[in-house]
Amino acid sequence: MKEGKVHRLEPQIYYYTFGPNEPALTVRSGDVVVAPTRDARGFNEKMAPMPEAMKQRNADTVLCERNPQVGPIYVEGAEPGDILAVTIQQIKLNRDYAWSRHISNFGSLTGEAPGKQLFLNDPIPEAKFDWQLDLKKNTGILKLKSSRQKRIEIPLHPFLGTIGVAPRFGRIEVSLTPGEYGGNMDCIETKEDTVIYLPVWVRGAYFSFGDVHAAQGDGELCGVALETTAEVTVKLDVMKGKSIDWPRLEDETHIMTTGSGQPLMDCVRIATVEMVKWLQSDYDFEKWEAFQVISQVGTMRIGNVVDPGFTVVAKFPKRYLPK
Amino acid sequence: MKEGKVHRLEPQIYYYTFGPNEPALTVRSGDVVVAPTRDARGFNEKMAPMPEAMKQRNADTVLCERNPQVGPIYVEGAEPGDILAVTIQQIKLNRDYAWSRHISNFGSLTGEAPGKQLFLNDPIPEAKFDWQLDLKKNTGILKLKSSRQKRIEIPLHPFLGTIGVAPRFGRIEVSLTPGEYGGNMDCIETKEDTVIYLPVWVRGAYFSFGDVHAAQGDGELCGVALETTAEVTVKLDVMKGKSIDWPRLEDETHIMTTGSGQPLMDCVRIATVEMVKWLQSDYDFEKWEAFQVISQVGTMRIGNVVDPGFTVVAKFPKRYLPK
Amino acid sequence: MKEGKVHRLEPQIYYYTFGPNEPALTVRSGDVVVAPTRDARGFNEKMAPMPEAMKQRNADTVLCERNPQVGPIYVEGAEPGDILAVTIQQIKLNRDYAWSRHISNFGSLTGEAPGKQLFLNDPIPEAKFDWQLDLKKNTGILKLKSSRQKRIEIPLHPFLGTIGVAPRFGRIEVSLTPGEYGGNMDCIETKEDTVIYLPVWVRGAYFSFGDVHAAQGDGELCGVALETTAEVTVKLDVMKGKSIDWPRLEDETHIMTTGSGQPLMDCVRIATVEMVKWLQSDYDFEKWEAFQVISQVGTMRIGNVVDPGFTVVAKFPKRYLPK
Amino acid sequence: MKEGKVHRLEPQIYYYTFGPNEPALTVRSGDVVVAPTRDARGFNEKMAPMPEAMKQRNADTVLCERNPQVGPIYVEGAEPGDILAVTIQQIKLNRDYAWSRHISNFGSLTGEAPGKQLFLNDPIPEAKFDWQLDLKKNTGILKLKSSRQKRIEIPLHPFLGTIGVAPRFGRIEVSLTPGEYGGNMDCIETKEDTVIYLPVWVRGAYFSFGDVHAAQGDGELCGVALETTAEVTVKLDVMKGKSIDWPRLEDETHIMTTGSGQPLMDCVRIATVEMVKWLQSDYDFEKWEAFQVISQVGTMRIGNVVDPGFTVVAKFPKRYLPK
Repeated sequence: MKEGKVHRLEPQIYYYTFGPNEPALTVRSGDVVVAPTRDARGFNEKMAPMPEAMKQRNADTVLCERNPQVGPIYVEGAEPGDILAVTIQQIKLNRDYAWSRHISNFGSLTGEAPGKQLFLNDPIPEAKFDWQLDLKKNTGILKLKSSRQKRIEIPLHPFLGTIGVAPRFGRIEVSLTPGEYGGNMDCIETKEDTVIYLPVWVRGAYFSFGDVHAAQGDGELCGVALETTAEVTVKLDVMKGKSIDWPRLEDETHIMTTGSGQPLMDCVRIATVEMVKWLQSDYDFEKWEAFQVISQVGTMRIGNVVDPGFTVVAKFPKRYLPK
Repeated sequence: MKEGKVHRLEPQIYYYTFGPNEPALTVRSGDVVVAPTRDARGFNEKMAPMPEAMKQRNADTVLCERNPQVGPIYVEGAEPGDILAVTIQQIKLNRDYAWSRHISNFGSLTGEAPGKQLFLNDPIPEAKFDWQLDLKKNTGILKLKSSRQKRIEIPLHPFLGTIGVAPRFGRIEVSLTPGEYGGNMDCIETKEDTVIYLPVWVRGAYFSFGDVHAAQGDGELCGVALETTAEVTVKLDVMKGKSIDWPRLEDETHIMTTGSGQPLMDCVRIATVEMVKWLQSDYDFEKWEAFQVISQVGTMRIGNVVDPGFTVVAKFPKRYLPK
Repeated sequence: MKEGKVHRLEPQIYYYTFGPNEPALTVRSGDVVVAPTRDARGFNEKMAPMPEAMKQRNADTVLCERNPQVGPIYVEGAEPGDILAVTIQQIKLNRDYAWSRHISNFGSLTGEAPGKQLFLNDPIPEAKFDWQLDLKKNTGILKLKSSRQKRIEIPLHPFLGTIGVAPRFGRIEVSLTPGEYGGNMDCIETKEDTVIYLPVWVRGAYFSFGDVHAAQGDGELCGVALETTAEVTVKLDVMKGKSIDWPRLEDETHIMTTGSGQPLMDCVRIATVEMVKWLQSDYDFEKWEAFQVISQVGTMRIGNVVDPGFTVVAKFPKRYLPK
Repeated sequence: MKEGKVHRLEPQIYYYTFGPNEPALTVRSGDVVVAPTRDARGFNEKMAPMPEAMKQRNADTVLCERNPQVGPIYVEGAEPGDILAVTIQQIKLNRDYAWSRHISNFGSLTGEAPGKQLFLNDPIPEAKFDWQLDLKKNTGILKLKSSRQKRIEIPLHPFLGTIGVAPRFGRIEVSLTPGEYGGNMDCIETKEDTVIYLPVWVRGAYFSFGDVHAAQGDGELCGVALETTAEVTVKLDVMKGKSIDWPRLEDETHIMTTGSGQPLMDCVRIATVEMVKWLQSDYDFEKWEAFQVISQVGTMRIGNVVDPGFTVVAKFPKRYLPK
C-alpha cells in the first residue's frame, strides 16, 4: 500500500472511551501517524500526571479515568463494512520506568466479573511494583525481597494494550473493555510490525490507541502489566470490498484472529470460527478441512483474563497458506 | 413514604440507551409517574411501529433500536450514593397481542456471547410466534401444530423487562444489557407491588423503564418473552444515607438481590454476596451465620440466560428477618 | 403399576461409590424397599459414627468416605436401555438433629472446582452449625449470635441428596458427584411423592440412595444442607421400551428434567434440550413449538452449585400437557 | 538420578482406566521402561485392531474402549505423598499413518460437556482424515480438496496424550479424562526430554501412559489429534520428602504447572496458584512477588478444550529462577 503523509500528533485531549468522539486528527488512507501515549493512569513520559485540561470531559456522563487514548483519528473514506488495516510501525519506549500493581477484586484470581466482590473471604492485598526499564539493553528490572533472588531482569517486548475503532453502537464508555472493535485486548501480538485489521462500523472509523505495555505474560494474570509510555507510529489503510466481524492480525509468520468476551471458552470459540471463516473466504479452504488443519497446526494465546472481557488470539502459520 | 404528585407522561422520544439522556420529565421524591410503554421492537398498543420522530437520535453514534425506554426521568435530590426506590404500582396491559421469536445466534442454546457465531454448525431457524392475550381472563393463547395439543392457554404475569438508572460511567449503549444499574434484567420479579432499589450513580438518577413482558419462563430461554405493551405506574422515592452496589428488590414475602454478568455462576455469586451484606448491614446478622441461613432458606431465580449479561435473583423470605 | 413385595433392608455395608457393587438386596419390578440412611459423614439416627465393619472396603483403591449409600439394589429385569422409575413413597426423619458446615475451599464462593485452591487469598473459615429438628412441628431451629435475631425456625422439607444407578462406564468413585446416572444432585425435588426416572446403563440397574437433607436452599450455597438421617421407602418399577439420557422427575404438578456438570450454563442447556425432547417424544409437540412453550412457562431450579458437577432442574407444568 | 534397570514391556493387556489395576510390571526407582503404545482406538503400529484378549476386562463394569494405556507400572517404594518423576526419554514413532476425526457432539465447538447434546441445532458432520507420516522427514501430510492447496505438510512433534498415576480415590473409569493424577491432558509438553512430576496417591503409584499424538495444535480444537503409535521410553524416579497437588513438568527451558477441569478459567487459576506455590516453596520467592513475576514473564498453553476436563499449562522460564 502506498505511503501517505506523516502526521505528528500532540494530543490536546486523551479520551477514556472508544467511539466517535471529536477527532484529534483527520487523515487519508495510507497516511502515517506519530504520537506519544500516556500510561494507564495518565502519567506521561516524565511521570507527570494528566493535566485536568487534557482529560476527556463529557457534558453529562461520568468517566472512568483509565487507559487514556490517543485519538480518535478520523480516516477519510472509511465506511461501515470496510476494514481499517493498521500497521504498527514503531513503539518507541520513552520512559525508564514502568509500574505494575495488585488490585483487590481485580485480576485472574478474583472471579470473572472484574472489580466485583464475588466472594466472602478477604480480597488480595493491594501492592505496587516499580520496574526500572533499561532502554538501551531493552530490559526491565524488578528488585525482589527474596533471600535468593534479589532482582529479576527481563527482556522488553513493547506492545499496545489498547487499539481499536468506534464500536457498532454508541460508545464503549470504559476503555478497559475489549470487543469486536478491538479495544483493551492486552495481546502481546499488537507489537511492532504487526498489522491489525479492524472492522469499520462508523464512517471515519475513529481509530485510537494507547496503554503501552513494556512487557507482559500471557493472560495479564495479576491484571496489570509493565505500564509505561511510548512514541507510537502507525500507518492507516482503508481496505474496500471486504468485511470482517472481529479484529484480525498478521505478522511475518502468522495470520491471527481474536475473540473477546466471557466466559473464556467463548473467546476460544469465536477466534476459532473466525479463523475457519478466514481460511475459507481468502484461501479457498473447504470449511471442515480448515477446521481440521487449524486443529493440528493452530496455536492460541490467552491475551487477558482480567478485563471486563477476556481475549484469546488464534494463530495460523502462514507457511501453510496457498501461495 | 409520602405520596407526591402524579405525572402523566406521554413520551415524545423513546430512548435506546440507559444514561443521562435529555430528561423526559423531572419529578420530586415521592412523585408518581404514569406512562405507556412500547414493545421491544417499538410497536405501540395498536401495533403501530415507532415513528422515526419518536426514536432517540444521536448526533454521532449508531443506535441499536431495541427495547425503547420510557424516560429518562430526572429525580430531584437524587445524588450519587443514594438509593432510588421504585414502587411498581401498576402494569396495565393494553394490547391483546404479544409476539415472541426464535432468532439465529440468540438465546440460551447458542453460546454465552449473544448474537455471536460461536459454532460451525447451522444456527437454529428463525421463527415468529403470535400470542393472543385475553385481557379479561388475564391469559395468553398460542395455537399449536401438534395433533394432540391445538392450543395452549397460560396465565399472564406482566412485568418490566427493563428498569434502571444511569450507569456509573457514561451510557449503556444497548438497552438489551443488564448490570449494576438494573437495565434489561428480564426478571419476572419486577412486577406489580414490587419495590426495586436502584443505586444512584449520577445526580438525578435518570430512571427509565420499558420492555413489558406479559409472561415469561425462567431464563427467557429462547431469548424472547411475550412481548407487549402496557400503561405503567411507578412511584419514585429517594432514600438518603444508604448505598448499595447492585439492584435489590422487595415484595410482600421476600427481600431479593440481583447479580448480572457472565458466566452464570458469577451472577449466583454476586447475588449471594449481596444478600449476605444486606442481612449484615440492615438486620444485624453475623456474616457467616447470614451465609448459613441463606444456604438453607434462600431461593434463586434465573432471570435471563440470553442477554449480553445474564441475571440471577437471590430471594430471602421476610419471615426470617428480625421484627 | 402393581405393588410388589415390601423389603425391609438393614444395610450391613454402606457404599461410597455408585456402580455395580455387591448388591445388598435383589428385588423385582414393583417391589418396595424400606431402609434407614446414614448422614453425609456416616452418623446414624443416634449420632453413632459408622462402624468400620459397615464401611465399603475396596481391595485396592482408596475411598472418599462421604455420602454413604444404601444399596445397591439389584432390580431383576432391568436391562441397559430401560428406565428405572423410583417412587419416593416416604422419607421419615428419625433424628432430632442436623448439622451443617462451612468448609474451606468448598461451596459456591470458592470457584467451580470443588475442594481445589483456585485463589491466593485466604479461604473462608471452617464452621459448624447445629440445627435442632422438631419432628412433630416439622421444623428446624438454629440459635444465632445476632442481637436482634436469637434463633431461626424453618419448615423442613426432607429429600434425598443422592439417588442414582450404576453409571454407563465403571463406577463413580466419589458419591459427592452427580451425573447422567443421578447421584448427588442435591435437588429438593427428590422428595416424598416424586417419581424419578433413571436411565438403566447396567443390567440390574444397581440402584442406591442416601444423604437425606431435612431442608436446603436453592444451590446448596455453602456446600452443606441440614444433614440428617431418615427411614426411606421407595418403590422400584422397570419401564421397558423407552430410553432416556438423563434423570427425569415427575410430581403432582410438573414433569422435570435434569442436567448436571460444569459450567452451570451447560446444566441449563442439557435440562432444556432434554425437556424439548420429552415434549416431542411423549406429547407430540413440534420441536420448535416445544422450545417456545418451555421458554414461556418453564421454570428452573438450581439444585446445587457446589458439588463436582452442578445440577439444574427444568420444570414444565403438567396442566399444559395434552390429556 | 541413578540409571536403573531397563525393562522391555510387551503389554498383554491395555487398560482403559487409570487406577490400581493389576500391574503389568514392577520396577524400582531409577528403572527405565520401554514399551509400544496403541492408538486412541486400539490400533497398533500395523493398524491391526486390538485383539479382544488384550482389552482390559472388568468383571462387573462396562468400559469405554478409548485411549488404551500401557501399564500400570508398580513402582516400588512410591508411597502416598511422594512424587513420581517421569523422564520421557524417547517417543519413537513406528507407524507411517495417523488418523484424525470430527465427531458430532465432541470438540471445542459443541459446548463444554463432551459428548452431550447441549443444543437443538444439528451437530457437526462426522468426518475422518488420513494423515501420512513421513518418519524420515518427521512430517505429516494431508491431502486437501481445495483448488489452491492440494496438500499440507507439517512437522511432527510426538507427545504422550495420556500420562498419569492412580488417582486419589478409586479409579478414573474413562481414560479420556485429565485431572490431578495427570491422565488425558493432551498437552504437547509431555514430549521427549520433558520430566513430568506426578503426585503419588496410592502405594506403588500405578503409572501408565499412551495415546501418542504425532502432532496437535493448541486446544486440540476438533477433539482429535494425529492419532498414532510409538515405542516409548520412560525413566521412573521416586522423590521423597516433597508433595504436590497437581502434575508439574520441566524441560530445558521452563518449569510448568497444570490445571485440569471445567470451566477453562478454573484451569488457568489452578495452574497459576500452583506456580506461585512452586516459586515460594522451592525458590524462596515471596508469595505476592511470585504472582507479580509470573504475571509478567509467564506463558500459558491451552492443552485441550475438548476432553471431560480441559487442561491449561502455565510456564515459567528457568532463567528467572535463582541459581
